[in-house]
Amino acid sequence: MPYQYANSSLKIFSLNSNYPLAQEIAELMGVELGKSSVKHFSDGEVQISIEESIRGCDVFIVQSTSAPVNEHLMELLIMVDAVKRASARTVNVVIPYYGYARQDRKAKAREPITAKLVANLLETAGATRVIVLDLHAPQIQGFFDILIDHLMAVPLLSDYFLSKNYSPEELVVVSPDHGGVTRARKMAERLKAPIAIIDKRRPKPNVAEVMNIVGNIEGKVCILIDDIIDTAGTITLGANALKENGAKEVYACCSHPVLSGPAIERIENSPIKELIVTNTIQLPDEKRSPKVKQLSVANLMAEAISRVYENKSVSTLFD
Amino acid sequence: MPYQYANSSLKIFSLNSNYPLAQEIAELMGVELGKSSVKHFSDGEVQISIEESIRGCDVFIVQSTSAPVNEHLMELLIMVDAVKRASARTVNVVIPYYGYARQDRKAKAREPITAKLVANLLETAGATRVIVLDLHAPQIQGFFDILIDHLMAVPLLSDYFLSKNYSPEELVVVSPDHGGVTRARKMAERLKAPIAIIDKRRPKPNVAEVMNIVGNIEGKVCILIDDIIDTAGTITLGANALKENGAKEVYACCSHPVLSGPAIERIENSPIKELIVTNTIQLPDEKRSPKVKQLSVANLMAEAISRVYENKSVSTLFD
Amino acid sequence: MPYQYANSSLKIFSLNSNYPLAQEIAELMGVELGKSSVKHFSDGEVQISIEESIRGCDVFIVQSTSAPVNEHLMELLIMVDAVKRASARTVNVVIPYYGYARQDRKAKAREPITAKLVANLLETAGATRVIVLDLHAPQIQGFFDILIDHLMAVPLLSDYFLSKNYSPEELVVVSPDHGGVTRARKMAERLKAPIAIIDKRRPKPNVAEVMNIVGNIEGKVCILIDDIIDTAGTITLGANALKENGAKEVYACCSHPVLSGPAIERIENSPIKELIVTNTIQLPDEKRSPKVKQLSVANLMAEAISRVYENKSVSTLFD
Amino acid sequence: MPYQYANSSLKIFSLNSNYPLAQEIAELMGVELGKSSVKHFSDGEVQISIEESIRGCDVFIVQSTSAPVNEHLMELLIMVDAVKRASARTVNVVIPYYGYARQDRKAKAREPITAKLVANLLETAGATRVIVLDLHAPQIQGFFDILIDHLMAVPLLSDYFLSKNYSPEELVVVSPDHGGVTRARKMAERLKAPIAIIDKRRPKPNVAEVMNIVGNIEGKVCILIDDIIDTAGTITLGANALKENGAKEVYACCSHPVLSGPAIERIENSPIKELIVTNTIQLPDEKRSPKVKQLSVANLMAEAISRVYENKSVSTLFD
Amino acid sequence: MPYQYANSSLKIFSLNSNYPLAQEIAELMGVELGKSSVKHFSDGEVQISIEESIRGCDVFIVQSTSAPVNEHLMELLIMVDAVKRASARTVNVVIPYYGYARQDRKAKAREPITAKLVANLLETAGATRVIVLDLHAPQIQGFFDILIDHLMAVPLLSDYFLSKNYSPEELVVVSPDHGGVTRARKMAERLKAPIAIIDKRRPKPNVAEVMNIVGNIEGKVCILIDDIIDTAGTITLGANALKENGAKEVYACCSHPVLSGPAIERIENSPIKELIVTNTIQLPDEKRSPKVKQLSVANLMAEAISRVYENKSVSTLFD
Amino acid sequence: MPYQYANSSLKIFSLNSNYPLAQEIAELMGVELGKSSVKHFSDGEVQISIEESIRGCDVFIVQSTSAPVNEHLMELLIMVDAVKRASARTVNVVIPYYGYARQDRKAKAREPITAKLVANLLETAGATRVIVLDLHAPQIQGFFDILIDHLMAVPLLSDYFLSKNYSPEELVVVSPDHGGVTRARKMAERLKAPIAIIDKRRPKPNVAEVMNIVGNIEGKVCILIDDIIDTAGTITLGANALKENGAKEVYACCSHPVLSGPAIERIENSPIKELIVTNTIQLPDEKRSPKVKQLSVANLMAEAISRVYENKSVSTLFD
Repeated sequence: MPYQYANSSLKIFSLNSNYPLAQEIAELMGVELGKSSVKHFSDGEVQISIEESIRGCDVFIVQSTSAPVNEHLMELLIMVDAVKRASARTVNVVIPYYGYARQDRKAKAREPITAKLVANLLETAGATRVIVLDLHAPQIQGFFDILIDHLMAVPLLSDYFLSKNYSPEELVVVSPDHGGVTRARKMAERLKAPIAIIDKRRPKPNVAEVMNIVGNIEGKVCILIDDIIDTAGTITLGANALKENGAKEVYACCSHPVLSGPAIERIENSPIKELIVTNTIQLPDEKRSPKVKQLSVANLMAEAISRVYENKSVSTLFD
Repeated sequence: MPYQYANSSLKIFSLNSNYPLAQEIAELMGVELGKSSVKHFSDGEVQISIEESIRGCDVFIVQSTSAPVNEHLMELLIMVDAVKRASARTVNVVIPYYGYARQDRKAKAREPITAKLVANLLETAGATRVIVLDLHAPQIQGFFDILIDHLMAVPLLSDYFLSKNYSPEELVVVSPDHGGVTRARKMAERLKAPIAIIDKRRPKPNVAEVMNIVGNIEGKVCILIDDIIDTAGTITLGANALKENGAKEVYACCSHPVLSGPAIERIENSPIKELIVTNTIQLPDEKRSPKVKQLSVANLMAEAISRVYENKSVSTLFD
Repeated sequence: MPYQYANSSLKIFSLNSNYPLAQEIAELMGVELGKSSVKHFSDGEVQISIEESIRGCDVFIVQSTSAPVNEHLMELLIMVDAVKRASARTVNVVIPYYGYARQDRKAKAREPITAKLVANLLETAGATRVIVLDLHAPQIQGFFDILIDHLMAVPLLSDYFLSKNYSPEELVVVSPDHGGVTRARKMAERLKAPIAIIDKRRPKPNVAEVMNIVGNIEGKVCILIDDIIDTAGTITLGANALKENGAKEVYACCSHPVLSGPAIERIENSPIKELIVTNTIQLPDEKRSPKVKQLSVANLMAEAISRVYENKSVSTLFD
Repeated sequence: MPYQYANSSLKIFSLNSNYPLAQEIAELMGVELGKSSVKHFSDGEVQISIEESIRGCDVFIVQSTSAPVNEHLMELLIMVDAVKRASARTVNVVIPYYGYARQDRKAKAREPITAKLVANLLETAGATRVIVLDLHAPQIQGFFDILIDHLMAVPLLSDYFLSKNYSPEELVVVSPDHGGVTRARKMAERLKAPIAIIDKRRPKPNVAEVMNIVGNIEGKVCILIDDIIDTAGTITLGANALKENGAKEVYACCSHPVLSGPAIERIENSPIKELIVTNTIQLPDEKRSPKVKQLSVANLMAEAISRVYENKSVSTLFD
Repeated sequence: MPYQYANSSLKIFSLNSNYPLAQEIAELMGVELGKSSVKHFSDGEVQISIEESIRGCDVFIVQSTSAPVNEHLMELLIMVDAVKRASARTVNVVIPYYGYARQDRKAKAREPITAKLVANLLETAGATRVIVLDLHAPQIQGFFDILIDHLMAVPLLSDYFLSKNYSPEELVVVSPDHGGVTRARKMAERLKAPIAIIDKRRPKPNVAEVMNIVGNIEGKVCILIDDIIDTAGTITLGANALKENGAKEVYACCSHPVLSGPAIERIENSPIKELIVTNTIQLPDEKRSPKVKQLSVANLMAEAISRVYENKSVSTLFD
Repeated sequence: MPYQYANSSLKIFSLNSNYPLAQEIAELMGVELGKSSVKHFSDGEVQISIEESIRGCDVFIVQSTSAPVNEHLMELLIMVDAVKRASARTVNVVIPYYGYARQDRKAKAREPITAKLVANLLETAGATRVIVLDLHAPQIQGFFDILIDHLMAVPLLSDYFLSKNYSPEELVVVSPDHGGVTRARKMAERLKAPIAIIDKRRPKPNVAEVMNIVGNIEGKVCILIDDIIDTAGTITLGANALKENGAKEVYACCSHPVLSGPAIERIENSPIKELIVTNTIQLPDEKRSPKVKQLSVANLMAEAISRVYENKSVSTLFD
C-alpha cells in the first residue's frame, strides 16, 4: 500500500452514502473513482448515469445502507442493475455498514426478516460478491449464496485503546447487554482484560428496571463496546450505571455510529469520556461532537478489495 | 357492489402511500382494512407490524410506489416478505401507480432498466400476483413471470368528458408527444373524435424548439391526454401551442398525477381549463388546485380484487 | 475492419435461417464459420452436430427467428444447449430478426406474451448474451435478465435516403400508424424533415374505415417507415392514401422484411417507388422484386461482435 | 367411466397434433373440449386464443410433440404461457408422445440432450405437471422437477395379443435390438412367453452387417416390440431375419407410430403380418395401411386425468 | 387436544431418528403414522417405501437430524423427494433437533456454512415448510426462503423448575459461556431470578484457563442452561466452578441432549444434581442416566402441526 | 503424461472415500493434493478444514459416493460449499463411482428418484462441473444442468481381455440380465465377439425361476459384464448357469466393485475364474480376494482433468 491499479480492470464507484470513504479507498488504491452520477428526477426517482465503459471490468461499488436507508439501498440495487447490464465481469458491492441487520430473525409473530430480504434483493439485482464489516450477527453471512467477505473492526478499535497504555489490571471490557458478550470477549482478549455485563432487569412487577452489573468494575477503566450505537440509550444508561457502581472512567466504542435521534445529546450529557467509532457511516456536521472520535476503515477496505481482485487470502488480514 | 367479504379469507392491507384509496376499496368490499402498522425506527428503518393472523389468507396489499418512491417501494417489499413468512396463501400487490415505469429500456448506454428490476424485486420478495393500472408501456406486463392484471383508466376518463355532452365534431384528442399517440387514439375512439399530435422539433440547429401541431385543431375543444403528468412541462407547453394555433378550449387528463416540482404552478398559469386525473396517487394539500379534478379508481380496483378472489374474468371489466 | 480473429477463442456458428449474412459477418471478422451441421431426422427432429472443439471459447450463434419461426427457434434453443454442454465459455446468440416480438403484451384476455416466453426459453437453454437489432418495442430488452445489446438500423436506412440528396423541405417522414410515430421521429431528425401520421379510423359506426392523414404531405416526397413489414397491407394502403392526398413520391423502408403472404404482390401494385429493407431476414427468390432493395447489416453485426469480444463499448457505435 | 366433469374446474384443451384423441378423452370425461383456437399468422407465428375464462381451473392440455415436432412443441409452450398468465390453478400437459425422447444423453461429443432441454422449457413456460406415456427411457422422468405421471401401453398391447389365444409355447417376444430387451421382457411376462433378441453385428471389418438372432424362434409366432417405430428399418429387417430363420409368423407392435419416410412402404413389403400401434400419434391418411391397427389410449388417459384431478393413485392403474 | 385428524388429508410420517416422538405426536393427533418404511440396501443406500397414496395431502415428516447426522439428513432429503413426486399438496418437515446448526457462519477462513447448506438442500429437495425447535441461533430462520415455524422449549424447562417451588431469591440462572447469555436471560425472566455467566479465560499467556464466574452465585441454587449439550465439557466444568465458588446446588438443562462421547460419564461424575432435557433427540440406553430427566415436546409439536394444518396462529402458543 | 501442474491454479483435493486414487491422480499430474482435512466432531458432524488459499483456482474434488454413501455424499456437499465460499473460480467434482445411480426412475409408485435428487443437491451446493465414469444409465447425464464429462471403462476392461490373446471365435460376451445388453454389445465390438444374454424367468407360476441362456455359449470362454457388482447374486448365478450350459471358462468384469454383503464369498465359491474391476471404489482388506483384479482409472481421470483444465476435447479420449 498504496496500490497502483490505474489502467487496470479494477473500477471503484461511489454512490451517495459515504463519498469521503470511497474517495479515501480509491486514493489508497491509486485509482480515480469511476465516472458516474446518482441524481434524482423531480419526482424523486433515482437516476443513475455511468459515464465510462466498464465492459469486462471488476467493479466495486461502495455504499453504506445507512440513513436514509431506503434511498441508499435503492441507489445500490439500481446501480447493481446498471453495472450488470453494462457487461461488467463481476459486480462487487462494498457495504461498510449493512443496514436492516438488526431485523435478522422473527422475534415476534409476523415480522419480516429484512436482513435476509436485502440479501436476496442484492442477489436478484445481480451482485456477485459482497464485502461487509461487522455484521450485527455473523450468521447473516449465511443469508447470502453469493460470495461474502466479512471484515472486522475490533483490531482497529483495540489498537486505539492499547495506544493509551493502560495496564490490563486497570481495564474491564463491558457488554452493554446480554446479547453482546461475545463481542466484548473478543476485545477483552486483545486487551488481556476481564469482562463485565450490564443486565437490565425488573426486580419485581411494577417496579422500575434496574441496571444490574454482573462482574467487577469498581475502580476500573471501563470500555463499553457495541457493534451499533443507534439512539445511544443503552450505552449511556450503561455508562451511568458503571459510574454509579464505582467505575473510574468510562469509554465507549462501536463499529457503526448510527447515532440517530437524541444520540449525540445523550452522549454529551453522559459520563462517557470518549466514544470511538469508525467511518463506515459518514457523520453529518450535526452528529459530530468533541467526544466522538472516528477511525478510518479505508486501509482495511482497500486491502480487502486488493486481495479480492488479486485472488489473495482475505482471512489472513485478521491473523 | 358493494361486496360482503367480512369474515372471509380475503384481507386488504394498506401501506403508507395512499391510505384513503385503500380505505375506500375496503369499504366497497365490506371489510375492514387489515390491522397493521408501518412505522420507522429512529434511524429510518421500516418497521412492519401485522397485528392479526393471516395464515392461509389471500392478502391484497395496496401501495402506490409514488414519491417518496424508494420509501414506498421498500415498505412494499418488506411487507411482502412479512406476509409471505406469515404463511399467507397468496400475496397480491395492488400498485395503482407503478413508479420507475419510465425506466423501462436502455435508452442510453449503461442505463439500468429499473422497471424490470422492480418487477424482479417483487417476485424475489414473494409476491404472487400484481394488480396495476395503466403501466407506462404495456410491455411492462412481460417484465413479470408472476400473474399480473392490468387495469385501464381510459373508460373512466372518457366517461367524464362524455358527460359534458360535446358533439364529436367539436372535439379533438391530442397527444402531447409522439410516444403517446396510441393512448390518444384509444380515447378518441370512445369519444368518436379525431386526433392530433404535438411534435416538438428544432427546425434548424441552434434554433429554439418549436411546438409543431400535426393535425387540425382550429376552433376545436382539445383534450390533451397522457398517462403520467410529472413536472407538467410538456402538457402546458402543448396547451399553449394549441391555444396559439386556434384551439377553442383545452382540457388535459392523465391517469397518474405525479405533479412534481413546478407542476401545479405551471398548470394554474396555463390555458388548461381543467385537468382530470385519478386518485392512484394521493395528492397532498400543496398539490391541490381548483383546476385539478380527481376521479376515484376505487370501484375499479375493488371490482378487480373481487374477481381475482372469486376466479372470475377480469378482462370482461373492459368489454 | 476487417478484423483478424482466426485462431482466437472467438467462434461464429450459423444455423439455417440466414447463412449468407452469417458468412458475410465471418468474412469481415477474418474467421471461418464454425464447423457444424443442422439437419433433420426423417421424422423432422432437429439434429445438431458440432464438429470442432469449443471448450473455453466465446461462441456467437447467428440465427434469425424468421419463418419458419418455430423451426428456427427450436434450432437455436437446441444449438444453445449443445454449445453450453460442450463447455463453451460464453454462449452469445445473435438474432438479427427477433420473431414473436409483436406478441409483447396481453392485448386481449388470455393471450400469451410470447416475446417474453422466448426470452425465458433462451435463458433456460443457456444463452449468456443476446445481440438483436431493432426490437419491435425497446422494452423487450427488459424481458431478458441476461446481457443484451440492441443495435439500430435507422442510421443505415437514413444514410440511404440522405444519399439521394433531397432537400429537407421536400421530405416528410410518415408513420403508417399511431404506434410508430417515435420511430418516424428518429428518422426525421436525421433527415431534418417533418413528420406525418396515417390515422386509420372509422368516421361513424357501419361506415368504412378511412385513411386519415395527420400532418402536411402535399407535394412532398414521403418516406413511410416501419420496423417490420409483414403482409404489407398497412404500408400499401398508406402509400395509396398519401398519393391520393397529393404526395409527390412515396418511398417505404423497414428493418425487417417479413414480406409474408400477398406482400410482394401488394408492393408491386402500390405507388411505392422503392422499398428499402435490411438483410436481417434472408429473402427467398419468390420474395425478391425490382422495387425491394436490401442493405446489409453485416458490418454493423461484425463490429458489435468484435466489441463484445474485446470488452469495448457497443453504444458508441451509435453516437 | 364415463365420468361427469361438466361444470367442474377441470378443463381439457386440445392443440393441433391429435385432436381426435383429445376429443375422445373429453367425451369419456363428460366434458366439452375447452374453447380455444391455435392458428398461425401469415408469417407462421403461432396465434393462441383461449375463449373462455379458466381462472382457478385445473387445465389439461393434450398435445403430442409428434411431427412437425417443432411446430407442436412451440404451440404447447405458448399455450402453457397463455394458460399460466390466465391464472389457471394448475397447468397439466398431457403429452401422449414425447418427441425428442431419443436425444436423452450425449452419445457423441458436443451433442445436445434435447429431451432434457424440452423438459426444462416446459417447466420454464409454467407447466406444473406432465402426463406422458412410454417414454423412450424411463430415466427421462428424472429430467423433470415438476410432477410427472408415466403411463404404460404394454398392458393394452399385450391384451390384444392375448385375445388371439395363442398358447404361450407358440409365442416368443423379440426385441429388435439390444437396447429394448427390458421392454420385450415386460410383454413376455404378460404373455408367459420366452424372449429373443436380434443382434445386428458386423462379423469382420468390411463385411456387411448380419442380423444375428440370439434365442430360439424357429417355428414360433414372433412378436417384435419397440417403443417407437420411426422409419421402420430396424423392425422390417428384423422381421426378415426372423422369417429367414424359421419363424412361423411375425407380428410387430409399438406404442408410438412415428412411421416417417419409407416406413409404410417398408412395412407393407415386409413379412410382418400385423403392426399394432396406439393412437398417441395421429396417423394421416398417407400413413394408414391395412396392416396397421391402432388401439386407443383414450381410456387410459381419461382415467389418469380423472385420478390426478381427484387426488387418487395413478400407479394402481397398472397393478 | 387430543385432536381427531383420522380420515383427513393430514398425514404424519416418521423416519428413523426418533420414532417414539413421532408416535407420541401421532397419537395426540388421533391419527396413525403414515405407512412407510426406510430401509437400507446391502450397500447402505437408503430405500424409501411409502405404502399409501398421499396425493393432495398435507404431509408432515418427523425427523431429527441427530447422530448419525448424515444418515438422518439423507433419509429426510430422499423422503422429501419421494413425497413431492408422489403429488403431496404440501411437504412439511418437522425437525425437532436441527443438526449442523453450530456451523452457521464462517468462523475461520474457508469454512463451510453447513447450516445454510442444509437449508438450501431441503428447499431443493422440495420441502415447503420447516418446523423446528430452538435453533442454535435464531438467525438460522433467515437461512430459509420457505416457511418456517420456530418453537421454543424454554417455557417447558422453566415450568419444570417452577414446580420445585424455590423462591426467586434462592435461584440464579447461569450461562455456561458468553454466547448463551440471552438464553439464560429468557429463563431468568420466567423464574424472576438473576443471571450469572461463566467466563472461561486465560489470565496470562502460557497459564491454564480459569473458569471465572461473572455475577453472584454464592449460596444459591444454580441452573445452568444451554441449547445443546454435546460432550458436556463446558457444562460440567462450569458446574465444578460453581460448586467451588460456593453454589448451594447445581442443576443443568438444555433443549437438545446430543450427549456424545464422554458426556454421560462426565455428567455422572459432576456435581450436577439433575440434568433436564427434552426428547427432541431419542436417547439410546447407553445415554440414559438416573441424573438425566427427559421432558416430552410431543404436545408442543402436535399443537404446532395442528395449527399449521388449520391455518391458526402458531406464535400465540408462546404468549 | 505425467503432467506438471505444480504452481498452477489447478488444485486437487481428496475427501475420505478413495484417497489412494486421488493420490495417484495427483502424482500423475505433478501436483500435491490440496491441504485439507475432513474429520468428524464427537457427535458425527463433518468438519471440513481447507488449509490453503484457493481464491481464483480451478478446484477438483475427488470423491466416490460409495459406502458409507450418505457420509461420503454429505462430505462432498459440505466440501463443495466450503470451496465455493472460499472463492474458487470453478468447483469440479470428480465422482469415479456415482452412488444412488440405480434409483434413476420411479419403478414403483411413490419412489424417489434419488439419482436426480443427488444431481440437484450438487448443483445447489455450488458444483460447476461433474466428472463421472460409467453412470448406471447414460441418461443420468441429463439430470445435470451443470457441465458433465462422462468417462468409460470399457476400453480399459476390453484391453485387459485382449491381452489374454483369445481368438474372437473362442469368446462370447454375456449380459447377466436384459438391462445390460447394450453394455455387453460395446465390449463385444472391441473383442469382435458375439453376445449372449442370461434371461432369468419363471416358466410357470409357483415354479422356481430358471436362468435361461439366450444365445450360444457352449464351449466358449464367457465374459460376463456389468457396470456395478453389488451383492454378486446375479453375476454368480449367471456364472453357474453358463458353466451348467457348457461354457468352457467364465470371466466377469465390471466398472464399479461395490461388493457388499455376501459378494466376496459368493464370488470365491463361484465358477468365475477372475473378476476384473476398476479402482473407482476403494476395496477394504475384507473385500480383497485372489480372484479379484483391480485396474486403475487414475490415468484416465488425470487425462480428463488435464483436458478440462486446458479446454481440450475430452471426447477424443475415447476415439
